[in-house]
Order: sequence, then C-alpha cells, then structure tokens
Amino acid sequence: MRDVPDVVDAAKRGLLGRPERTERLVRTLLPKRLALPVFASDALSSVAYAPDEIFLTLALAGASAVLVSPWVALAVVVVLVTVVASYRQNVRAYPSGGGDHEIVSKNLGPRAGVLASSALMVDYVLTVAVSASAGAHYFGTALELPHGPELALACGIVLLLTLVNLRGTRQSGRGVALLTYAFMLGTGLVVVVGAVRHLLGGLPEASSAVFEVVPQPGFDEGLLGLAGGLLVLRAFASGSAALTGVEAVANGVPLFREPKARNAATTLGLLGAIGATLLLGTVLLARATGVRFVEDPATQLVLAGGPVPADYRQVPVLGQVAHAVLDGVPWLAVGVTALTGVILVLAANTAFNGFPVLASVLARHGYLPRQLHTRGDRLVFSNGIITLGVGAAVLVWVLDASVTRLVQLYIVGVFTSFTLSQLGMVRHWTRALRTELSGPERVRMLRARVLNALGLAMTATVLVVVLVTKFTRGAWVTVLAIVGIGAVMTWVRRYYTRVSADLALDPDPAADRALPSRVHAIVLVARLHKPTVRAVAYARASRPSTLEAVTVALDRGEVAQLEEAWDALDVPVPLKVLDSPYRELSRPFVEYVRGLRRASPRDVVVVYVPEYAVEHWWERLLHNQSTVRIKRQLAQVPGVVVAAVPYQRD
Amino acid sequence: MRDVPDVVDAAKRGLLGRPERTERLVRTLLPKRLALPVFASDALSSVAYAPDEIFLTLALAGASAVLVSPWVALAVVVVLVTVVASYRQNVRAYPSGGGDHEIVSKNLGPRAGVLASSALMVDYVLTVAVSASAGAHYFGTALELPHGPELALACGIVLLLTLVNLRGTRQSGRGVALLTYAFMLGTGLVVVVGAVRHLLGGLPEASSAVFEVVPQPGFDEGLLGLAGGLLVLRAFASGSAALTGVEAVANGVPLFREPKARNAATTLGLLGAIGATLLLGTVLLARATGVRFVEDPATQLVLAGGPVPADYRQVPVLGQVAHAVLDGVPWLAVGVTALTGVILVLAANTAFNGFPVLASVLARHGYLPRQLHTRGDRLVFSNGIITLGVGAAVLVWVLDASVTRLVQLYIVGVFTSFTLSQLGMVRHWTRALRTELSGPERVRMLRARVLNALGLAMTATVLVVVLVTKFTRGAWVTVLAIVGIGAVMTWVRRYYTRVSADLALDPDPAADRALPSRVHAIVLVARLHKPTVRAVAYARASRPSTLEAVTVALDRGEVAQLEEAWDALDVPVPLKVLDSPYRELSRPFVEYVRGLRRASPRDVVVVYVPEYAVEHWWERLLHNQSTVRIKRQLAQVPGVVVAAVPYQRD
Repeated sequence: MRDVPDVVDAAKRGLLGRPERTERLVRTLLPKRLALPVFASDALSSVAYAPDEIFLTLALAGASAVLVSPWVALAVVVVLVTVVASYRQNVRAYPSGGGDHEIVSKNLGPRAGVLASSALMVDYVLTVAVSASAGAHYFGTALELPHGPELALACGIVLLLTLVNLRGTRQSGRGVALLTYAFMLGTGLVVVVGAVRHLLGGLPEASSAVFEVVPQPGFDEGLLGLAGGLLVLRAFASGSAALTGVEAVANGVPLFREPKARNAATTLGLLGAIGATLLLGTVLLARATGVRFVEDPATQLVLAGGPVPADYRQVPVLGQVAHAVLDGVPWLAVGVTALTGVILVLAANTAFNGFPVLASVLARHGYLPRQLHTRGDRLVFSNGIITLGVGAAVLVWVLDASVTRLVQLYIVGVFTSFTLSQLGMVRHWTRALRTELSGPERVRMLRARVLNALGLAMTATVLVVVLVTKFTRGAWVTVLAIVGIGAVMTWVRRYYTRVSADLALDPDPAADRALPSRVHAIVLVARLHKPTVRAVAYARASRPSTLEAVTVALDRGEVAQLEEAWDALDVPVPLKVLDSPYRELSRPFVEYVRGLRRASPRDVVVVYVPEYAVEHWWERLLHNQSTVRIKRQLAQVPGVVVAAVPYQRD
Repeated sequence: MRDVPDVVDAAKRGLLGRPERTERLVRTLLPKRLALPVFASDALSSVAYAPDEIFLTLALAGASAVLVSPWVALAVVVVLVTVVASYRQNVRAYPSGGGDHEIVSKNLGPRAGVLASSALMVDYVLTVAVSASAGAHYFGTALELPHGPELALACGIVLLLTLVNLRGTRQSGRGVALLTYAFMLGTGLVVVVGAVRHLLGGLPEASSAVFEVVPQPGFDEGLLGLAGGLLVLRAFASGSAALTGVEAVANGVPLFREPKARNAATTLGLLGAIGATLLLGTVLLARATGVRFVEDPATQLVLAGGPVPADYRQVPVLGQVAHAVLDGVPWLAVGVTALTGVILVLAANTAFNGFPVLASVLARHGYLPRQLHTRGDRLVFSNGIITLGVGAAVLVWVLDASVTRLVQLYIVGVFTSFTLSQLGMVRHWTRALRTELSGPERVRMLRARVLNALGLAMTATVLVVVLVTKFTRGAWVTVLAIVGIGAVMTWVRRYYTRVSADLALDPDPAADRALPSRVHAIVLVARLHKPTVRAVAYARASRPSTLEAVTVALDRGEVAQLEEAWDALDVPVPLKVLDSPYRELSRPFVEYVRGLRRASPRDVVVVYVPEYAVEHWWERLLHNQSTVRIKRQLAQVPGVVVAAVPYQRD
C-alpha cells in the first residue's frame, strides 16, 4: 500500500496544504469594528431572500395583495427587534459562548439540550444550503447568465467553501470587513436614494412592473376570506427568514474582546437595527417601484395578455429595487447585486466555522462519533467540515437550489432553536430570582425575564404559524431531521457510556492482569509458500507451549499435495487437516480454535495468519478475502490473539 | 459481529436454500431429445427479435423498402447455414467443449485466446440483456400491459434468473424440453397455417397494415442510391442477430451423450434448419400480411394522415404474424406470444450456465480474479453468477431495455467470436494437413477447411458490415469492452504469475526457515482500559526478549494522565511516549517500529494491538479507525508481526 497514501497524500497536500504543528492553534480576538462585519454577513444576508419570500407568497393572490407587503415586513421587524433584545439577555447571562445549546441543556435538561443541538446542526446545514443557493441566483443575475446553471453554481460554492475550510485558511478579517461594509454601504445607498427619490416623486418603476400577476385558483377574493388570511400568515412566516443569523452572535461571544458580553450585546443591537432598516426599506421600495416577484413566472406573470418570454430571468427583489433606484448608474446596481452574492457566500462560510466546533464539542461529550472531535492535519475539524459540506450539497441538489423550498426548511429549524433558547432563558431567570430576593439586581433580572418571555411568545408564535402553514410544504422534513438526529445522538451517547463502563478497569485490577498459563500457537496454512514458511518461523521463534499448522480441506487433491510438500519441508511442526464438507474455510477453523480454548480456558491461543502485503489497493481485489473473514470471526472468540505475519515482496 | 452474519445468513438461506455437500456435484448427460431443446432456446429465440430489426431498419426508407425484407432474410439464412456447417467441423475437431476459447487459443495463440474469451464473456452478458429485454416486450404484449413497465420487467427477469441460478436449481430437463417443443410447435403452426392460407389466398392483413410508414429524411429515394444500399446492408447486419446462440452448442459438447461430437453436430444441424425455416417463414408472412414495425411509432407511423394514438403498443413482428395468421383463435396467438417470452427467458438462462463456468476456467488459469473460481455453498460459481447478473442488469438499465439498441452491441460481440473461431479452425486444418499427407482423412480435412474458410469469409464480412454500419450506433461500446476486458485479463494473469514466482519456495528452503534470533514485543497503548491490560498480559505470557508499552502523545494532558495511571497499575512493563507534533497517530509509531527493526534486522518485532470486538457492524462507525491504518502500514515493514488482541464484552 505504498502508492495510494502517496497519491492521496499528494492530492491532499495540493488541495489543502502542508500539515500544521499543534502549536499554531491560537485564537485571535476581534475588536468590535471587525466583529460586526464578521457576524453581519450571517444576520444581514437574509435581506437577500426574505423580501422575495414575502412577495412571492402574497403574489399568489394577485398584484393587489402584494400591497400589504410593508405591513408583513413590519410584523417581521417587530419579531426581529424583540428577538434581538431577548438575545442580548442571553449573551449577558451566558458569555461563555455555549450559545443556545448551553442555555437549553443547563435550564431545560439534557434531553432538551440534545434537541437544541440537533436543531442547531440542522440550521447550520440549511444556512449553507440556503445561502449558497441564493448566492448562486445573485451571481447569475449579476453576470446575466442564462437560466439554468444555478444548481451547478450553488454546488460549486459549497464545494469551494468546504475546500477552503479544510485548508483552514483564516479569512482575512480585514477583507471580510471591507466587503461587508461595502455591502452595507451599497444597500444603504439604495434605501436612502430610493427614499429620497420616492419623496421627491421621481422614483422610476421596476422593470417587472409591466407584468400583470395572475391570482391563483382559490384566491379569487384576494386577501379576504380564510384563504387570504392564511396567505398573509404564510407570508409573515416566510418573511421571518429575515431573523436567521441572529443566534450566530450569541454563539460567538468568546471571539469578542473584553468586555465580551457587552461588546457582543452592542454588536447584536446594531445588527438588529441595520437588518430591520434594510428589510423595511427594501420592501417599501419594492412596493413603490411595483416589483413583481412570483414563484413560477411562466404561469403567474402575464405581459399584455400573453405569457412572459421563455428566457425571462426573475431578478431577486433586492436586485430589482437596486436597478430601479439606481437606474442612472446601472454598474452600481450590478455591483450591489454582486456584493449581495458575496455576502451570501460569507454567510454560508460562517456555518463552516460554527458547525465543526459544535460537532466537536458534542463528540467530546459522547453525543456524536469520536471522529468529529479530532483535528485534522491542518488543525481544523476536517470530519465536521466534510459532513457539513456533504449535507448542504445533498440538500441543494435534492431541492434543485430552490431558495423558496430551502427557506421553508430553514425557518422551522431556526425558530425551534429560538423558542427552546428563550424558554431556557425564562427558566434561567426564574431560578435566579429564587436566590436574588431584592435589590437592583433583582429588578434587572425581572426586566430580563420579561424581555425573554416576550421573545419566547413571539418565536413560539412564529414557530406555530410556520408549522401550521408550511408543514406539508417541507417543514415536516426539518421536524423529522431534528428529532431523528436527536435520537441518534441520544443513542450514540448511551453506546459510549456503556462501552466505557465495560472497558473501565476494576478498582482491584488483579483479575485483569492475571497471566494466561500457556500459549498455544496455530499457523493457518492455505498453501505452502514463502509467507507460510515465514509465519511458521516466527511462530517457532516465540517458543509457544504447543505449535501446530492447521489447514482446511477444501479440495482433496490439493490437500494431498500440500501434505506431501509439508513433509518434504521437514519442519518440526505437525500439519493438521480439518474437514469441510461444505467447502467453507472459516467455520471449521474457527470451530477448531474455539474447541482448543474450551479445552483449556486459562490458556491463550495465538493464531498466526500468513499474509501477502499488497502494494496497491487494487491488488487486494485479486486476493481471496477469506482471511479477513476468519480474523473477524476469531475476534469474537475470547482468549485468542490473531497475529498477522505480512510477507513483503523484496 | 455476531448479528450480521446471522441476519445475512438467514436471508441467504431463505433465498438460496441450505448449503450443499461437495459430494452432490455430479453431471447428468443429455440424450439428444433433451439436448436439442436445452440448446434450442438460445439458438431459436433470436427469431423473436431478428425480424423486428430487419423490418425497422428497412422501414426508415418507407413501406415499399420493407418489401425487400425476404431477400435480406435469405442472405442471413445463407450465412446461418454456412456458420452452422462450419461449427459442425469445430465440434468434431474439439469435442472437449472448450469451445471458441479453446480453438482460438490453441491455434491463434494466447493473445487471440484472451480476446476470444473476452468477446465470449461480453456475449454472455449481452445474451442475458437482449433476451430479458425482448422477453419483457413479449410478456408485455401477451398480457396487454400498458407501455412502460418493460424496463422493470426486464430487470425483474435478470434478478429472478440470478437468484434461481444462485440457488443452483437444476432446471428440470423435461420441463424445458416441453416448453421448447411447445414453442417450436406453436411457431411451426403459425408458419404452416400462414403458408397454406397465403397459397389459398385467404391470409388476412396484420392489424398494423392500416398504418402508413413515413420515410425518414435522407431516404426520399427509397432503397435507391448510396443511402438506400447502406440501409439494406444495415438491415442485413441487424438481421444477423438470428445467428446468435449457434456457438452455445459448440461450448456444450461435454453435456451430450456418447458419441458426443456426432450427437452435437446432428443437434447443431437440426437447430440450423429449424432456425432458418422459422426466420424465413416469419419474414415472408410478415411481408404478406403487411406488418408495419418501426423504431419510433409516434413519428414514423401515420394513420389516415394523423399520428398513431399515444397509447399505441407496437407488437413484435412474430406476435403480429401469429395474430394475423391465427385470427380465428386469438387465444392461440396469445399463447404463441407468451411462449416466445418464456423461450427468451430460457435463452437468457443458458448464459447463466455458460458464463460462470467460463469465468471459473479463466480464473483457474489466472486470467480472472481467483474469487470466480470457487464454488459457493450451493455448489455453483456464485461470484460468476452475480457478475453476470449485475452486468446484464446495468446494460438493460442504461439502454432502457431497448432491444434494438442492445442488439447493436450483441451482434458485434457474437461475430467477433465467430470470426476468431473460424480463423482458428482454418489454421487448425492447415496445420493438421501438414502431417496427414494422403488418404480419405486428408480429403475430409480439406473439405472441412473449405467449410471453415467459407464460414470465416461470411462471418468476417458480416463483422465488417456491422462495424461499418453500426460503429457509431453502439458497436464501439462492444469493441471497447472486448479490448478492455482482454487487457485486464492479460494484466491479471501477469500479476498472478509474478506473485506466485515471488512466493514460491526456494529449491533450498533453508533461508526461508531461519528462525529470528529474538522477539521484541510492543503493546500499542491509546488509553488504559481492560483491552490494554489484557494485551499486556498476553504479551507477557509469550515471554518476549524485550517488552515495552508505547503510546503516541496526541494531547499532552491526556498523556500525563495516562502515565500516572500506568504507574498506578504497577506492571513490570515500561511505557514509552512518542512525540507527534502533527497530531498523527500512525506515522510516529510506525517509524519507531521501523527503527527497532533497523537496529536489529535479524529479530522479529511483535506489535500487540488491543482491540474492542464490536458486536454489530454499525458500531464500527463509532470507534476510531486509527488502528486499521497502523496495521496496514505495519504490514509494509518487514519482520513485523501484528498481533490483534480482541476484547469481547461479557
């Protein structure tokens, strides 16, 4: 097997770089001006898709229904502000950065903690899937690509992020900050210029304003009636996608400079304010410019009585608004669109920072397979990064990079996390209040509890609305995933606990250390060639109490030849032939070894297995795998040592 | 790993039955009246698809072009008769049943032999794929299924045959004979009744005669011009599919009763005559009843100016003829159609007899992996059966059970075999004639050589025609497969030869038997738990010259804890700690072992690896696989024995 590791190694080195020494593991702390942009990508990028979801949901009831979009956005902003205020309490109470996972398990018990971690992992995967897909659409718009390559583009983004993170490339904080500030500046410019032009009365129409929106069957009354009411609720639920990313700050507290909690809380507040402004601004301007955005342009849009052109590419709402507002400087609008794509990629990247760390922590506590806990050569949690990348790529692939369908799954996960965490916080304050009976601290705690309770009410409401309006439209997948992963985690934890109890040394380890009285050695013989002779020599060198060679008679003629050759070899080791009426190799041999052990249970049996050390993995296919099976079965027999004697070609 | 084998075993027993004792391997010899039907299915079943291929190819140039179909069929019959006469010589000259493989390698050398074997294996796979697909279409017709389930049906047939053959079920010769005779009777009846009604002038039209056939672009002149001429050649090449199956008799000579060669030759002659009659009869009647059969009914058929109904199911030519001729007794026509399907399944089954035996012979001679040579529990060559089943299923799947597309591949393979084998025979007679200088035997040989040369000319011509007219339509796949498999076989053979030379004992085996002077034992320690303690105890029990425990420092804190616990354990074995700046487990350890060996090259190093014996395969996922890697790397170090010490839960 000399070659393969070399080839794989070379490829790995080329892609990922040389291994890093453990000492290089240091943590750089972020000043606020860098922390804001680092977390901003995740929290603000949702403005790239949340307005789209509001518009396309309302558009089911026709163009007039879209007019209520600012009210829906306002409702989302109210929830956003409440949740931000609420999370500022979380950050202050749990500055260690355990985030939702820690809050929930400390206050609601380990079961709820498992559920919260599971939801958080699902959220990370969906963050990548949603952001990469939305990013692909923005890049497609900015580069004016024909419709179609979004799926490939989105998968490419996921692959790229996976490789970059496996390399362990530290994002230059300055570069990220520059891009994020540019994005804030660009979108801020759009909102301000748009507002001014609107007030002055010179705001142009969006290019899609010429289309008519066909109300879908069942929505003939617009937003009146039950169907209409439910539609507004659905739009609100979809728009809540704008809240995703808020929790990232809470999980990242340790990355802030001192005073960590306060700096994190300030950053969170700032992000909330910026996000709310952007969302409201975009939706108001989209309404003012008459933006049309629907689920399926081919059937829902009509141009002068006929369908839209087949190659019509629907530009995201933010992009349409930018183009309408900045109609004099199209390159600037294209720039804002492209920047939005970049910010979405950065948002996906934050999950690549968060997920592997979370998985590693969970693995350390025995909730996930141990392989997720170890750092690879580049000092990153390689297995976690690969898991995240594969999970996100599969989701993108299966849902065809459709942001709308992915967002349905995303919101459920995010609001499950929010709700559990707020519930945990309410419990936290209630407990704390039991000991803190008076004074200003008590007042502060009471106020904090009110804020968290308000957050809980809001997020729980949204969660219920989402589940009710979206359950059949994909929300069940997330629910199933969260519960399923939670169940697996519980099971894994139980398994590790059991194994480690089984393997722990007894307080008086004398029993474990008792030496076997004798050693019986057996050499497994299939043919008589150099490896066999070498195995016999090594077995003899270890001077066992008894030594014999054993072969299984698969073919009578061959066995007779073997016996003859064995006699000619003239070694002082008898050859025993085992019968095998069913031409099995492993069963008779393993039974024989088992019998030996039964006869003398205090002895140990060492089985020497001659092996040919293949040089290349594919050579393995050309050798019988029967010894693999024998070794596996012998592993189940107590008191047996399987000694492989590899023979190398010179 | 207790459970899995049990579950797999139970499933295997349920599907395949209990294992068989070696003694049950006996061979039953076939009298002629049973041999004819056994081989008939393969040779005659081609009449089920060969006419279809002739018709659909000619139909590209419109309905009038189809009128030449009997002439094309006649040309095919001429080739068929020649090849049969030629193969009768093969059978007489090589009665041992080595078939084409033996003839080619004996006369044209091992390289050509490899190519012939490769072609033969490809043919077997294609026999299954073509017959199962055609069978599925016949069953679909007989059962009047809606269009669509053919792919599933064909895959089902392949799966069924794979399972039946893995079970090793001996087909009741009587049952097969009954079905085959019924098929011959049924199709014979159709031909005779059809001929009589035609001569009496009362032959009705086929139901598809009402359609018009639209000539395809490029064939506006019908069969005139170059395009038309090539089309007739293509039709001839496609019709040559009727010859497939002839070689099966030559490979099956040992199954005949004595005098084997003569009985086989008689059977071959009979089959040739029956096949030729059926083919010509079917094509003549199809022309007389105005059968329409095209590649794509939706675009090529027109009914009263409009396209055919969307749910139109195109019935195979033989089926259409049967329905037209037997229009008074439709159940009989349906019976003939269904029987044809059954015969096709039996034809596919013959490949399941031939392929595994061929693969086993090739594996015995080192041309294929050894696993193909061993008989499974049910005394059949299980690996060969599985390989054939998977190969055929993949082909059926990829080509969507399209008989037309599969036949393109099939013909190339079959005619490659034919041509090589005839060439070998010509060479055979030429050589034999060198020694046989006079007498009646010489005359017989000269006559035989003429026959084989004629066969060679015919089959080579067809092969060239097929390659020229079909190369881009799929023939290249077969060419590539034959050459590719041939290359792999040559390489495998070379590999086995090299390995067995390397491993063969020296004439004076003293060097091999020299005992190592000392034994150094090392226990690999990761953590201190029961498996480690047991490994240490077993290592001590074998009383090595030196014994030490070795651990790799992945995490400094953990190592310090381990050292402390080790001291507390109080065993007379020192613990050595190896540094690992890059957090690798295997490299420092393997380097250490390598260093030990370098210091004392005449000693042997035994590495004891404590292992936890998992009970279920999925538990393996929860344990670090690092020892697997260490063991694999140690296998490359000469003079090292890897002793696994498994620890079982009580």
